[in-house]
Amino acid sequence: MINKIAITGGTHGNELTGVYLVKKWQRSPKLIERSSFKTITQLMNIDAIKEVRRYIDHDLNRSFSSTDLANDGLDTYEAKLAKELNIKLGKKGSKSPNVDFIVDLHTTTSNMGLSIVVSNMSKTTWRAISYLCQKEPNLKVYRWQGDIENAFVDSIAPNGFAIEVGAVPQGVLRADLFLKTEALIYHLLDFIEKENLGDNLELPNEVEIYDHEKLVDYPRDENGDIVGMVHQDRQDKDFTLIKEGEPLFLTLDDEVISYKGESMYTLFVNESAYYEKGFAMTLARKRVIALVG
Amino acid sequence: MINKIAITGGTHGNELTGVYLVKKWQRSPKLIERSSFKTITQLMNIDAIKEVRRYIDHDLNRSFSSTDLANDGLDTYEAKLAKELNIKLGKKGSKSPNVDFIVDLHTTTSNMGLSIVVSNMSKTTWRAISYLCQKEPNLKVYRWQGDIENAFVDSIAPNGFAIEVGAVPQGVLRADLFLKTEALIYHLLDFIEKENLGDNLELPNEVEIYDHEKLVDYPRDENGDIVGMVHQDRQDKDFTLIKEGEPLFLTLDDEVISYKGESMYTLFVNESAYYEKGFAMTLARKRVIALVG
Repeated sequence: MINKIAITGGTHGNELTGVYLVKKWQRSPKLIERSSFKTITQLMNIDAIKEVRRYIDHDLNRSFSSTDLANDGLDTYEAKLAKELNIKLGKKGSKSPNVDFIVDLHTTTSNMGLSIVVSNMSKTTWRAISYLCQKEPNLKVYRWQGDIENAFVDSIAPNGFAIEVGAVPQGVLRADLFLKTEALIYHLLDFIEKENLGDNLELPNEVEIYDHEKLVDYPRDENGDIVGMVHQDRQDKDFTLIKEGEPLFLTLDDEVISYKGESMYTLFVNESAYYEKGFAMTLARKRVIALVG
Repeated sequence: MINKIAITGGTHGNELTGVYLVKKWQRSPKLIERSSFKTITQLMNIDAIKEVRRYIDHDLNRSFSSTDLANDGLDTYEAKLAKELNIKLGKKGSKSPNVDFIVDLHTTTSNMGLSIVVSNMSKTTWRAISYLCQKEPNLKVYRWQGDIENAFVDSIAPNGFAIEVGAVPQGVLRADLFLKTEALIYHLLDFIEKENLGDNLELPNEVEIYDHEKLVDYPRDENGDIVGMVHQDRQDKDFTLIKEGEPLFLTLDDEVISYKGESMYTLFVNESAYYEKGFAMTLARKRVIALVG
């Protein structure tokens, strides 16, 4: 039973879709009310939203590891904010959390279309994903399971994921993708309502996902400065297979760097925020996973 | 006779195409060398480039009015920088300027394609534009002549314009548009070389332009907060006619605001940097102007 879901926007202050969807629902709360559970909305990184920046001191969406949340010595703006949000929307790992499900709204400058980034493996999370994929056949699912503990916003609730929509520039509100994100949230709320009310949902028992494999960095010189860009043939090719020998980068010296390695799918191709994180795209394997239970 | 041209990049620190084109030419200066004149390159807003922000204190590309350049009381980062750059690349209004032509490289999140923004009406500027339109039939020309003195970077030299290329998100390098901008610069250098060497260029004696008419702001509430976005049917419709009654904005209350007024062309539709400047797009008239002389 889901008693409360939180829709969070503006975790990154320059990703306006989530910010303005939350503003819309704060103006018109009936749009997200359902009979069997409570929906709350939360604008996340208030100072960064004001400045239309991703963050003030560091990335809020990497600030929710249990270690960092327990570390009283961390006193950056986002570290303090993460602790406050964890109390309000968590607590992380609690047996009686304040919120049962978090959906965190993001945009990307990559051509990711309408996609979900998920690390949580809970049954409710994946039943929701299966339902959404049924309703939105173009929806793609990217499963991220790193070596380190998940420190994303949605990790502080028992169920949840992030929605990534693109391509949208930072600091821009695109109506078409705003409306697609909004529609996806209404499907999610409908799903929870149906689950809570005991509807016998006929869900596919498997989901096609893109499973994170590794990161690929830009070509850089000895000082770490970028000296090449994503090749024009790879630009916008998210969720698209890349094979050995296909063009990957174009350098400032007019050299083409080709892809080496086994065939993979490229995701988050040329996302603005990842230049500083040190990757030009991620590589993933497509697989089908069975839903448990 | 053009003795020196300056190619300037990074006037806005988050518009990477110009930054990396300048870096490319600083690595390979022969690419922009020609026999009859000198080409110099300049990275403009160094601190903003480091921070991948448009500016530090205020917009450098609005900082070159004669009044501001002469005002010793202005001591913001960009005001001081503008004075230094004016000495190096100007001086504005001088009869013996250090540079004869400035081409300032920009990108936009709007779907402006390959375009020129020009305020200068010098014969050399417009012969260059005519030549470029001949070489690149998709090139569009936007003439901006405001009520106030032109304070753009290119205003400090006797001839010049800005190149605007999009759609590119801020903080992103797109190889396709990088290559198109690069090719346009080589055409410009070829033009100057031919003019200097006395080639008998057969140029069209008229140019089709989009003449700036006015700005259109987003729908805002009583606090000035944006409460609507560019309607999905108008998004990406740069250099496209809008007629009375066609959808212009979609509000957060699901209302469609239609365009009122005489038919015009919409430009800079939904440019990220203009949210704070207070406009969602500009309106222009298409006309054909004759080249003088």
